Amino acid sequence: MKDEPVRQRILAEATRLFADRGFEATSVQEIVVSAGVTKGAMYHYFDSKDDLLHEIYARVLRMQMERLTRIADGPGSLKQRLHRAAADVVETTAANLDDSKIFFRSIHLLAPETQKSVRAERRRYHERFRDLVAEGQRARIFSDRVPADLVVDYFFGSVHHLGTWFHADGPLTGAQVGKHFADLLLTSLGAGDVDE
Amino acid sequence: MKDEPVRQRILAEATRLFADRGFEATSVQEIVVSAGVTKGAMYHYFDSKDDLLHEIYARVLRMQMERLTRIADGPGSLKQRLHRAAADVVETTAANLDDSKIFFRSIHLLAPETQKSVRAERRRYHERFRDLVAEGQRARIFSDRVPADLVVDYFFGSVHHLGTWFHADGPLTGAQVGKHFADLLLTSLGAGDVDE
Repeated sequence: MKDEPVRQRILAEATRLFADRGFEATSVQEIVVSAGVTKGAMYHYFDSKDDLLHEIYARVLRMQMERLTRIADGPGSLKQRLHRAAADVVETTAANLDDSKIFFRSIHLLAPETQKSVRAERRRYHERFRDLVAEGQRARIFSDRVPADLVVDYFFGSVHHLGTWFHADGPLTGAQVGKHFADLLLTSLGAGDVDE
Repeated sequence: MKDEPVRQRILAEATRLFADRGFEATSVQEIVVSAGVTKGAMYHYFDSKDDLLHEIYARVLRMQMERLTRIADGPGSLKQRLHRAAADVVETTAANLDDSKIFFRSIHLLAPETQKSVRAERRRYHERFRDLVAEGQRARIFSDRVPADLVVDYFFGSVHHLGTWFHADGPLTGAQVGKHFADLLLTSLGAGDVDE
């Protein structure tokens, strides 16, 4: 059901409208008109405007979690896998910038239960990422001067904030920013150069 | 005029209400009732609700700019001054967490002209900070592998994102997080230990 074209079109139009006008100022009526569907079709897929906002962010998070799992469990040294995972999440966030921009602006407008469930999904992502850092700290490949949790908060602050300054038509691509951020992360862990 | 008690009380109540209920859901009427002032008094100091939101963030930014200037132009090696400046902005942001939280959630709701002026003020702050990084890169005290601008975007992403996870009653104080973040910044520039 997740890949049905009508559902995708509703999500795409909602993302565009929320990014242009803000979540608060966009009505369900405007979304269905833009997507060229009936309200009945919209409510077949989504319970509410809240549900749409949740799904816009959740689908990016699901995709990033799948990629992180593949990289973390994949081949290469720990340094290489952490570098790849860090560069990848910057690149996919830059490629889906509207989604995270809308989300961080509007999460406080969601019902408390929905906020809790999204935060839990994101926490699982951060924990998988943190495990890579902690594994390297235990193996003395990475410096353990700063606790792994705080290293992750530091790194993801930068990732989540891309929406405030990154532009697709700016001087650097998402992949270039990703490489730089991954370099900064590895160097901040005292891990020096990574051959990629 | 900036330190008048009535003005301060209006700002404090607006900050509390915007943080609790959101900027959009708070009316000027609720702010004046909470602050125990008349609408006339409120409009004596502030043109609008937008103006209040702008001032909530601008006063923190002014304070941080003054502190940064004092540290950057003060005594100590470049490493020490950058470390102090980095730790300081984390600590003052953590101590004024509602202000930046409200701001990053709501800046898109401000009039375009106001958004532009706040962004310009923040840019000046970032540029002063970047100058410290660039100076060290030119002097070969810091690695110049990552451009100074990007180092600053990376660092301030983490600072601006404190509002999503830091809690005053959490396991670490703002000063402790500041020291850790400053350590990560200096290490990511290949600058090793700083004696403070």
